[in-house]
Amino acid sequence: MQNLSASLRVGILGGGQLGRMLLQAAANYTVETFVMENDPECPAAHLCHHFIKGDIRNFEDVYNFGKGLYAITIEIENVNAEALEKLETEGVKVFPRPSVLRTIKNKILQKEYYKSFDIPSAAFIVTNNLNELKEQEDFLPAVHKLAEGGYDGRGVQIIKEKLDIEKGFAATSVLEKMVNVHKEIAQMVAINEKGETALYPPVEMVFDPHLNLLDFQICPAELETRILWKVEAIALSVVRNFKSPGIFAVEMFIDRNGDVFVNETAPRVHNSGHHTIEAHYCSQFDMLWRVILGYPLGNAEQILPSIMVNIVGDNGYSGDVKYAGLEDVLKIESAFVHLYGKKQTKPGRKMGHVTIMSRDKQELLHQSNKIKYTLFARS
Amino acid sequence: MQNLSASLRVGILGGGQLGRMLLQAAANYTVETFVMENDPECPAAHLCHHFIKGDIRNFEDVYNFGKGLYAITIEIENVNAEALEKLETEGVKVFPRPSVLRTIKNKILQKEYYKSFDIPSAAFIVTNNLNELKEQEDFLPAVHKLAEGGYDGRGVQIIKEKLDIEKGFAATSVLEKMVNVHKEIAQMVAINEKGETALYPPVEMVFDPHLNLLDFQICPAELETRILWKVEAIALSVVRNFKSPGIFAVEMFIDRNGDVFVNETAPRVHNSGHHTIEAHYCSQFDMLWRVILGYPLGNAEQILPSIMVNIVGDNGYSGDVKYAGLEDVLKIESAFVHLYGKKQTKPGRKMGHVTIMSRDKQELLHQSNKIKYTLFARS
Repeated sequence: MQNLSASLRVGILGGGQLGRMLLQAAANYTVETFVMENDPECPAAHLCHHFIKGDIRNFEDVYNFGKGLYAITIEIENVNAEALEKLETEGVKVFPRPSVLRTIKNKILQKEYYKSFDIPSAAFIVTNNLNELKEQEDFLPAVHKLAEGGYDGRGVQIIKEKLDIEKGFAATSVLEKMVNVHKEIAQMVAINEKGETALYPPVEMVFDPHLNLLDFQICPAELETRILWKVEAIALSVVRNFKSPGIFAVEMFIDRNGDVFVNETAPRVHNSGHHTIEAHYCSQFDMLWRVILGYPLGNAEQILPSIMVNIVGDNGYSGDVKYAGLEDVLKIESAFVHLYGKKQTKPGRKMGHVTIMSRDKQELLHQSNKIKYTLFARS
Repeated sequence: MQNLSASLRVGILGGGQLGRMLLQAAANYTVETFVMENDPECPAAHLCHHFIKGDIRNFEDVYNFGKGLYAITIEIENVNAEALEKLETEGVKVFPRPSVLRTIKNKILQKEYYKSFDIPSAAFIVTNNLNELKEQEDFLPAVHKLAEGGYDGRGVQIIKEKLDIEKGFAATSVLEKMVNVHKEIAQMVAINEKGETALYPPVEMVFDPHLNLLDFQICPAELETRILWKVEAIALSVVRNFKSPGIFAVEMFIDRNGDVFVNETAPRVHNSGHHTIEAHYCSQFDMLWRVILGYPLGNAEQILPSIMVNIVGDNGYSGDVKYAGLEDVLKIESAFVHLYGKKQTKPGRKMGHVTIMSRDKQELLHQSNKIKYTLFARS
C-alpha cells in the first residue's frame, strides 16, 4: 500500500499570514511542519510543530533549516535562493524550484522570461542609471521598477512624462510601457510534479479611484468568454514554462482592446487567493499541500461567488492594534473574518481579511462596501 | 472603542481532534491559546501557543492550568469539574459552566435534569446492583448505562430480555426504556452570555444495519416540518435550562409515532458538527470562539447540504497508521478530508473524517458510500 499518510517533514520560509493560513490547512493532513522566521511572535510561529528563529535571506540559516526536510516552500520570494539550490541538489524538494525564484526575484529576468516564451507583457527597456532613463523620453508614459529588492509597492515609480524622470531609480531597473488598464485580474494556477494543472477562476481587483488602493477582489472576474480563454491560456503558459511544481498567482492587465498583459507572477500562495478558503472546494493552501505531499490536485471550482476585502492598517495609526467595527462585521451573515494576529499596526500593513459569499453580486458589493467603511485596524 | 481585539488567553482541556479543529479556527482571531493533555504528541499539541502536559482529571493540574486565564473550555466531559468550579469562583469564565458538567457527567443527574424541565426523554429507573436490575423485568427491553465513567460506547449495555440481565452493571446505573428508534438525530445549539441562541439544522445519523456502526451523518436531517419544530423546541429547552453559555450537541431519537426523546447532551463541540467546517457559514468551532470571546453569534445556516463520514480504525489493525485508499478519496471533487494526525490506529479509534457537499442527495449518498468502501485506517 502506497503510504501517503507518512508524516512528511515540510518547512516554510517566512512566518506571516500566508504561513499562518498554510498551517491551518496543514492540520487537515498528517504533515510535520517547520517554520523559519526572525520574529518568534510572527503570525505562523505557534501553529507549526517546530519554529526555528532565523533569517530567511541568510545562506547558512536557510541551508541548516532545510537539511533533512522532505520538502520546503516559501511564503515570500525574498529568501536565499542559493541555499535552496544547494538543498535541491541534495534531494530536498523545493516548491517552487529555486530556478523560478531566481527568474522572478529579478524583474529583468522575469520580463525576459515572458518574452522568451511569447507571453504577452508590456514592452520594456533596461536602464542602469538616470542618464539612460532620460534617453527614453519617447517611451513614456511608463513604469520604472528596480530590478532587485522591490517589494509590496516599494521600488516602483510611475514615470508619466519628462518631468517625472528625476523620480526614477539610479540603479539597474526595468522601464515598462504603461498599459491603459481596463481591468486588473489575477489567476491562481497549481501544477504538480506530473505537470497536471488546476486553474482557479480569475479574480478581478477593484481599486479605490481616489487613493489607488485595492478595495476588494471579486471572484470570478467578469470577463467575456473569449478573453477568459485568452487569460487562462496565458496563465497556463506562464506556469508551465517554469517547469516547476507549486502554486502561482499570475497578475494580468486587460486593456480596452481586450489585449492581455502579464504584469507579475508570484510563485506561491497569494493575497489574491484568500477567498478560496471558504468559497472554493479546495483552497489555495490545501492545493499547495496536495502538490507538496504528492496528493491528487484538488477541485479549484467555486462553491459560491465571493468578494475578499483586505483589512490594512489605517492611515495615521501605529502601535498596538485595535479593530474598530469588528463586532458589526462579525454580524454579517455571509462574512468570514480572518485576523492575522499581528500585535502592531501601521499604515498599510496587512492585518487581516474578510471574505463574503453570495450568489448575488449586488449583495457582495453592498456588503464589501459596508465592511470597508466599518472595519479599521487602528491603535 | 470596545477592544474586541485584545489577545485573550483561553485554555482548552483535552488535546484530541476537537481541540485540533478548535485551534485551526482560533487562528482566524487573535486569541492566545493554551492546551492541557497528558500526551505531548496529541493532535492539538502543536497548534496552540502554550502546551501544558497534565492530567485533565486531576484537581491540581486543572486548577494550575486555568489560573490567570481569561476563559477555559473543554473538548471532553471527563475533566475535573471541582477545579473548574474553583476557577469559576475566582473569575475565570468556563464554557460550559461546571454545573453543566456535573449534571451531564452523571447519567442519573442528566436524566433527572430532563425530567425536571419536562424535556421528553425515555422513562428510566435507577439500579444500584444486579438484584435491583432483576426486579425490573417488566421494564424491558431497556438500556443499562453506568451512572458515571462511561464513554464512547463503554458503560452501555442493551438488556432486551430477562436473559440479558446478567450483562448489566453491578454499580449505580440508569435503566432506560428502549425507544423504538425510527431516526437518530443530533442538533448543535450555541448560546452566548446574553442568552442569544444559534441553531444548526439537525443532522441524521445513518447506521450500518449489520454492524450497528455509524456510517455517516446527513445534514440536514430529513424531517417533517412539524417534527423539526418539535426537535428545535426540545433542543432549545435542553440548552437554555442549563443557564450556561457554550455550544451543545443534543442527541435525540424519533420513534415511529413522531415522538422525540432526548438521548444525551454533549456540552461542547461534537462529532455531529464536523460538517459545519465547510458546509455552513459559521462552523461549530468558529461559533464556540464567538461565544467565548464575546463576539456576535455566527450564521449557523448551511451553504450546501452535506454528509460527514468518520474514518475509524479498521478492525484487525493496530499500530502505526496507514490510510488505504486516501489518494482515491482525495480525488473526489466535493470531498474535504480531515486526518487527525494520530500516529497509532486501533479498531474503532477516530482517525479522521471526510465531508462531502452537494445539492443532490443521491450524489451525497453515492460519494459517502464510495468513501466508506475506499478509505481505511490500517497499520
